[in-house]
Amino acid sequence: MNIILLSGGSGKRLWPISNDVRSKQFIKLFKDAHGNYESMVQRVYRQIKTVAPNASITIATSATQLSSIHNQLGSNVSVCIEPCRRDTCPAILLAAAYLHEVLHVSEEETVVVCPVDPYVENSYYEAVIELDKYVQNNTANLTLMGIEPTVPSDKYGYIISESNAAVSKVKEFKEKPNTETAKQYIAAGALWNAGVFAFKLGYLLAKAHQIVDFVDYKDLFTKYETLEKISFDYAVVEKEKSIQVTRYAGEWKDVGTWNMMSEVMSDNSKGNVTLDDACDNTHVINELEIPVLCMGCKNMVVAASSDGIFVADKERSGSIKNYVEKISTDIRYAEKSWGTYNVVDAQTGAVTIKVSLDAGKGMSYHCHDFRDEVWNVLSGEGTVTVDGMEQIVKAGDVVTIAAGCKHTIKAVTDMQLIEVQIGSVISVEDKTIF
Amino acid sequence: MNIILLSGGSGKRLWPISNDVRSKQFIKLFKDAHGNYESMVQRVYRQIKTVAPNASITIATSATQLSSIHNQLGSNVSVCIEPCRRDTCPAILLAAAYLHEVLHVSEEETVVVCPVDPYVENSYYEAVIELDKYVQNNTANLTLMGIEPTVPSDKYGYIISESNAAVSKVKEFKEKPNTETAKQYIAAGALWNAGVFAFKLGYLLAKAHQIVDFVDYKDLFTKYETLEKISFDYAVVEKEKSIQVTRYAGEWKDVGTWNMMSEVMSDNSKGNVTLDDACDNTHVINELEIPVLCMGCKNMVVAASSDGIFVADKERSGSIKNYVEKISTDIRYAEKSWGTYNVVDAQTGAVTIKVSLDAGKGMSYHCHDFRDEVWNVLSGEGTVTVDGMEQIVKAGDVVTIAAGCKHTIKAVTDMQLIEVQIGSVISVEDKTIF
Repeated sequence: MNIILLSGGSGKRLWPISNDVRSKQFIKLFKDAHGNYESMVQRVYRQIKTVAPNASITIATSATQLSSIHNQLGSNVSVCIEPCRRDTCPAILLAAAYLHEVLHVSEEETVVVCPVDPYVENSYYEAVIELDKYVQNNTANLTLMGIEPTVPSDKYGYIISESNAAVSKVKEFKEKPNTETAKQYIAAGALWNAGVFAFKLGYLLAKAHQIVDFVDYKDLFTKYETLEKISFDYAVVEKEKSIQVTRYAGEWKDVGTWNMMSEVMSDNSKGNVTLDDACDNTHVINELEIPVLCMGCKNMVVAASSDGIFVADKERSGSIKNYVEKISTDIRYAEKSWGTYNVVDAQTGAVTIKVSLDAGKGMSYHCHDFRDEVWNVLSGEGTVTVDGMEQIVKAGDVVTIAAGCKHTIKAVTDMQLIEVQIGSVISVEDKTIF
Repeated sequence: MNIILLSGGSGKRLWPISNDVRSKQFIKLFKDAHGNYESMVQRVYRQIKTVAPNASITIATSATQLSSIHNQLGSNVSVCIEPCRRDTCPAILLAAAYLHEVLHVSEEETVVVCPVDPYVENSYYEAVIELDKYVQNNTANLTLMGIEPTVPSDKYGYIISESNAAVSKVKEFKEKPNTETAKQYIAAGALWNAGVFAFKLGYLLAKAHQIVDFVDYKDLFTKYETLEKISFDYAVVEKEKSIQVTRYAGEWKDVGTWNMMSEVMSDNSKGNVTLDDACDNTHVINELEIPVLCMGCKNMVVAASSDGIFVADKERSGSIKNYVEKISTDIRYAEKSWGTYNVVDAQTGAVTIKVSLDAGKGMSYHCHDFRDEVWNVLSGEGTVTVDGMEQIVKAGDVVTIAAGCKHTIKAVTDMQLIEVQIGSVISVEDKTIF
């Protein structure tokens, strides 16, 4: 039993806590049984491992998310890296080739594709594991798991099945309907299409070779950038004649908006937050050092990070996307393989960054053509190399790196730096790695 | 004609834009005729100079506000500095001695004490200037200007006059009443007591010697810290038998809460702010670099500064004080005689500050016993002196200052620095000035 967790997408809808490099699945707003904060991807991974300890999980994700995946799930997790962002069809086909050639999964084994972002109970993954049985019965090429609708939502696609049996042939798919039409679908036993697909690996490999002209995994990886941006639903599911669907009736929440997120957050607030007694049904997330004070807020969400501050009526918060695209801020916070960085000041010709390095981790050996840098060590100990010269540094030390100098830092203990960048052009593109 | 502008008080009620070192009268949320932002103190000063160009204005303020006064009104303004914070009685008595001995004002001249924080039309100051006539008529020891109430407010003290004439004897003072009682007072022609007192300087000097045992201004200044914290209303006004009052019926707003401030702000928003169409009667002030996005906010005030983030229903915002006292944050932004400083990061053992120096200005020559400092020059040019050694610095230069080293910087052009402070004890008290 193999599970491909699709961890893609950028995060405009949960701005400013998520951004183009920190997708919503990495935000830690849930809690595990021990009261420790965990993210969506951590929660889902934990749930699958609880329900099916022997299931083989592979995370299909883009290169930009790799650091976050490793930071949150450890470095031993199986990851199929998409060299760039395409849609779900290329991602799933690449993962199929990866499973077959890199992990040596047989063509007869069941593969289930699951999105990484629903908020569900463990019973959801028990139902996912059940799909193995239906796939191995050979009663259809493709097995879906539909969600029993709780409201006539206009946000989801619907699956029309031939019967309301535990497993039934699929008659047809319906695009997002209006509320009236959704009511009719539901009365007829329709299900939400939540993107859970199961099949034998051989079926998917055959589809891959039908859709793309490639030799093997390595070839597909190389060609990835040229693949059409198309969803798996559109390219495969809606064209397949032999599909069956199972029914899941437990709790399922699509945590795609602040309104939905606030329904499933473990606490009403996170971070340095004060709410007065007159606040009601209000959720506040503060990732900044400075305090947030809310008074008399009703049905609101407030979120503050290095990227910005969001204050919204919960109902309105669903319309955030267009506004965030207009704001188009620079990304000021990111997780890296070595820790985190956080822009604390930006002015013309100078950017100041707080850098946190994890013990044992180090940056790549690199240089910049158009900017000087200064490392002010705030705490911890490590080793700095500039143009081949190595030195040990600790709190209070200052290292100046002129443009063109190769440099790196490796943390011996956890380290904090203030990095000051000075130059007429300051850009993430200005970086050569050796 | 002499006017004492009382510019005191700390600013918890307009947190986080005002704080203990930046009082509300220095926040620039109004606009002058040219569309330039101006603060309360700038607006009031401009209004008085417009109405009475020859009036002599002295600002009574504490030492901590001196830099802000000079930055906003220029360095030639007359200031009577309170060595520490007492209440309005000590402040007014000290100012009386200052007027007499430092500015050589005669005992026969009229002095009017005005608070610095009402939002009024120019006609208010025309009425203030009129007080001179009533004082010089010698019909009472003390002349007040009362405000014609617009609502039966429970927030102000009331003045009960003998008649509704333009000037009338005062019968009695009433403490803040409940709304019902306020209605009865208003029906009987009562006025709000807005803290405008007029008298001959000689009267005030005599009171000063009655209340405090002192020889002259210098002696009073030296004894200031020992003076009782008591309001002028309580110590002088309510004990005086011979008082008359004039009536002011124009616009008068006590800009003491965010709710009132939002009524008189020139714009709905200031700074990097986006409001969606569903926002209504919402005011947003953003002093941070990062964007604020508000959606569907109704009757709200949002304010963000280096000190914190405030999100409140306007009606509730009046109760901010107790909450802010509990938050008790460090002050992260301040105006200095040489420019501004802004804490951009604080962790155990290290504080990082963005320093902006105005061209031609410089810090005092000083040292710290318990912290090292690093100046990273971001932009501009200036001169740095460390232990007597002078050097010219420009963008990209780095100066390290070990604990115990005397140091100063003088800006030739406007300059920006990142100052990194490292030490086991980092405190504003750790400073020796030479």
